[in-house]
Amino acid sequence: MEAGWIKYLRSLPNTELLGDDAAVIGSSLITVDMLTEGVDFILAETSPLLIGRKALAVNLSDIAAMGGIPRWIFTAVALPAGSLVLPQDMITPDTFAPDILAKAIFAGMQPLIDKYGLILAGGDTNTWDGGLVISVTVIGEVSPFGIFRRSGCQPRDKIIVTGQLGGSILGHQFLFEPRISEALYLNRHSAVHAAMDISDGLTLDLSRMLTESGRLGATLYETQIPVSSDAVKLSLQTGRSPLEHSLSDGEDFELLLSVEPNEAVRLLTQQPLMPQYGVRLYEIGEITAESGMRLRRADASLQSIEPKGFEH
Amino acid sequence: MEAGWIKYLRSLPNTELLGDDAAVIGSSLITVDMLTEGVDFILAETSPLLIGRKALAVNLSDIAAMGGIPRWIFTAVALPAGSLVLPQDMITPDTFAPDILAKAIFAGMQPLIDKYGLILAGGDTNTWDGGLVISVTVIGEVSPFGIFRRSGCQPRDKIIVTGQLGGSILGHQFLFEPRISEALYLNRHSAVHAAMDISDGLTLDLSRMLTESGRLGATLYETQIPVSSDAVKLSLQTGRSPLEHSLSDGEDFELLLSVEPNEAVRLLTQQPLMPQYGVRLYEIGEITAESGMRLRRADASLQSIEPKGFEH
Repeated sequence: MEAGWIKYLRSLPNTELLGDDAAVIGSSLITVDMLTEGVDFILAETSPLLIGRKALAVNLSDIAAMGGIPRWIFTAVALPAGSLVLPQDMITPDTFAPDILAKAIFAGMQPLIDKYGLILAGGDTNTWDGGLVISVTVIGEVSPFGIFRRSGCQPRDKIIVTGQLGGSILGHQFLFEPRISEALYLNRHSAVHAAMDISDGLTLDLSRMLTESGRLGATLYETQIPVSSDAVKLSLQTGRSPLEHSLSDGEDFELLLSVEPNEAVRLLTQQPLMPQYGVRLYEIGEITAESGMRLRRADASLQSIEPKGFEH
Repeated sequence: MEAGWIKYLRSLPNTELLGDDAAVIGSSLITVDMLTEGVDFILAETSPLLIGRKALAVNLSDIAAMGGIPRWIFTAVALPAGSLVLPQDMITPDTFAPDILAKAIFAGMQPLIDKYGLILAGGDTNTWDGGLVISVTVIGEVSPFGIFRRSGCQPRDKIIVTGQLGGSILGHQFLFEPRISEALYLNRHSAVHAAMDISDGLTLDLSRMLTESGRLGATLYETQIPVSSDAVKLSLQTGRSPLEHSLSDGEDFELLLSVEPNEAVRLLTQQPLMPQYGVRLYEIGEITAESGMRLRRADASLQSIEPKGFEH
């Protein structure tokens, strides 16, 4: 949920919105994310398998951001009744289009359900005269090793991410692997001060983590941002620099971690996620007591940067 | 979720769909319901306060159907960005229409949030180029006195409902009171064998309860169906009989209870929900070992009836 809405909803009585990626109720983690046609996917251009996968994966990424274990899923789907455009090979004359679509959406979730041993425990399937909307609720368990929160950043912490950034619109947005196992490993074996997933863009999400941690700031190292090859590809189309894409593109769904400096050195040297998960940790900057965000250029000069990313 | 989908989803691996109104995970109850524009409400004709209220109330009714205690709510909303038709007095030049709409939706939920001491703990608010969609997740607690399920009907049980039925489209669909307190009272003080809420129509929902209870049947007493005044009013417009409306109209959101016969006599005589809640219990029929549903006419003749109601 975006900052403005969180602020508004927090102003209402009877709310408990801590600004983390999932709510904590007792030993349960709960997250709800909704995908809408035209914003999160283009139905005519995207396999419904990938749409279903993404609808679940974005929620799993929220559980990963809390260092937790996903367990149960609930789906609410609004299926378009009319004027449905599906890939040609999915259409047969004796089937009802919304049914094919819904089955493909569930089939797209299945590999992640299997991989993490999830249980589909309920939901609501509707047909209406509108576009495709999928809302998924995931219920997880708090890890016995604790909860990752956004609010724990401390000055001099190193900022670490779990993968390359930018250009996810070229495909990564549908194919990303939620960092469940990686987060559980770090939760068990390391001292992470704060975490979230990068869903709306590195600088925008980092600014949210800094706000939750009490007006801290950050310096990002320009030469150490892991610019993805998709960010480079996309920059050829947009005319913006690959770095800009890495700093502000949404839907990377990598973990953004704030780690105690000595522990960070150990993690970055040992790269403990490589052997089992093939995931490399990248140091991209540090937390500062001074508020605001800065980019440290190759020549060591500092340039002030504003949060940029996808606002809902 | 409708029967066909439950059957399909049950056929997938890793599902636990028990066919009740809410899922049971440990001592938690979880329910997810989605409302879509044009199906569950007409945005141009309905105050968004009432739409918000309904989106929450239908979920609370599911918790009531399980005899449980609602605690936390999560909302996922897709707000129409363009061509929004709102009542004239809600539009001011300096406000952004989706924001007004969203605030009104939350304001509509507030009285129920206050009444039941709920906590808004998270959600997802989106703007898109489509109609209004609201998905609400409610998490509740299992009552220490147990769980109402659909599967407990026994032959000779009396079938009892908590209010008059039919014609809810004339207004009750937005104004109904979820039977939370009544269900908790019955759960604590009475022996209810099975329960659900009437969301899709009496005979359709009853047939589902009978199926979950293992192919039992039911006889409904024509002269004892509590026909609402709205069912009578609606029949003047539709040409269908008031009884037909009571038997098949959706969205009554009354409890449908299967109660041990002696206990049923006690409840119907003592009417324990009247003093505190103003709610009268109506005996409308009985469970039979013979499958199928029958209507017992005034002259004691039996007429076979088919499940009728709203299929999603």
